Amino acid sequence: MKNKRPLILVTNDDGVSAPGIRTLIEVMATIGDVVVVAPDKPQSAMGHAITINNMLYLNKISNDTDAITEYSCSGTPVDCVKIAVHEILKQKPDLCVSGINHGSNSSINVIYSGTMSAAVEAGIEGIQAIGFSLLDYDWNADFSQIKSHIKKITLEVLQNKLPEGVVLNVNFPKLKENEIKGIKVCRQANALWIEKFDKRQTPQGKDYYWLSGEFVNQDKGEDTDEWALENGFISVVPTQFDLTAHHAIKNLNNRNWNE
Amino acid sequence: MKNKRPLILVTNDDGVSAPGIRTLIEVMATIGDVVVVAPDKPQSAMGHAITINNMLYLNKISNDTDAITEYSCSGTPVDCVKIAVHEILKQKPDLCVSGINHGSNSSINVIYSGTMSAAVEAGIEGIQAIGFSLLDYDWNADFSQIKSHIKKITLEVLQNKLPEGVVLNVNFPKLKENEIKGIKVCRQANALWIEKFDKRQTPQGKDYYWLSGEFVNQDKGEDTDEWALENGFISVVPTQFDLTAHHAIKNLNNRNWNE
Repeated sequence: MKNKRPLILVTNDDGVSAPGIRTLIEVMATIGDVVVVAPDKPQSAMGHAITINNMLYLNKISNDTDAITEYSCSGTPVDCVKIAVHEILKQKPDLCVSGINHGSNSSINVIYSGTMSAAVEAGIEGIQAIGFSLLDYDWNADFSQIKSHIKKITLEVLQNKLPEGVVLNVNFPKLKENEIKGIKVCRQANALWIEKFDKRQTPQGKDYYWLSGEFVNQDKGEDTDEWALENGFISVVPTQFDLTAHHAIKNLNNRNWNE
Repeated sequence: MKNKRPLILVTNDDGVSAPGIRTLIEVMATIGDVVVVAPDKPQSAMGHAITINNMLYLNKISNDTDAITEYSCSGTPVDCVKIAVHEILKQKPDLCVSGINHGSNSSINVIYSGTMSAAVEAGIEGIQAIGFSLLDYDWNADFSQIKSHIKKITLEVLQNKLPEGVVLNVNFPKLKENEIKGIKVCRQANALWIEKFDKRQTPQGKDYYWLSGEFVNQDKGEDTDEWALENGFISVVPTQFDLTAHHAIKNLNNRNWNE
């Protein structure tokens, strides 16, 4: 950091024109040199999808600011991180931030989220990374309430670094700046979606389905992200890409797999 | 299990007509009643993507076997599991198996894999689940070599159950049945893809890119899935959907987030 502005990669999953990423770019430009590589269309719920059976387009977007370079990409959020690091920058940025997502990425939502998958991809590539989400699905959500918190969290991560193999999943309650009680480091709540499929018919009489569902939090713990958010705190969950259930290895080793 | 054939949901990411899933269906039909809900086209590398901004089509596929019911679905592998459980079966199956994938899902590949994401989704919904993959990308790979091992692993899981919140990521080396040395319970190796983008031009002169990359295993451990596979073993990694880096919570709590 000494006398050098950090290089910050910004991406998201709602698309490059979403108000959430515009706010994030604005905050990051007060901290460092910003390169934006974000999807050219909404890519919500794309998880960790990558494009291997199709080509990718990249378009440079003009703007008047030397400190901000912007591209839109036809791929997924994870594609954006890969093409940013390996084709556009050809070096690791000091930080990758993703968001601000329009809607929650707490608890199990982390696994479906394009926003968080982009941050996780940066983590896999050895880059400090944070995903930011606001619990407000409205396209015109008021992101100005959380700008100061985003700056504070970003500066903390740039200064003190995250443990190896860890990225942050940061969710903000839908509250006014002065109503937010503070930041809590949490674990991911044990929650899930119970799906309902809405069955409809095309004008030609063919059945089709819309996915919809109800969010169910099965976790009564007070150390979870869901608890923190319900109680007016910003949740910060250290998130990893080693999916091994290390605690289960002993149990599985006691079985007779080879008989 | 007592006197009742288990209900087994089969899916994959290579599409319902892929030889890998045909082999898996054949093995599962010797164990239980089989319902297949698989993508109607290849959906490799879709990760945990779900379809929230588009509709889903479902087509019943005729066959002559009472014990096997098959559907193709226009969505992702995770969509297939959701629509199978909540719309087609309207109950939890006793087991969900995904694959056999044409190619490796070991180490970091687990996070990009549609095959494994389908198994993980079943795990989220409280269903015993296993993803199977063969280290052979060939459409005409020889899946017959691993049929006996798939049956043995499946029966073990049906009989003794997996720990809560855990699904299995099973990868097979590309070897003859009698060359396979056995089964090893492993952790996910710390590996990644170093990407290269192949830049080309459309006939109209517009640049586009193809993602390609080189797999790099940074992990020298002999308890990893990569080590097991290189040494002729079947790798079995217990895989979880709690992405919390629990070991990092103390470190993060020692920071001054709220000052």
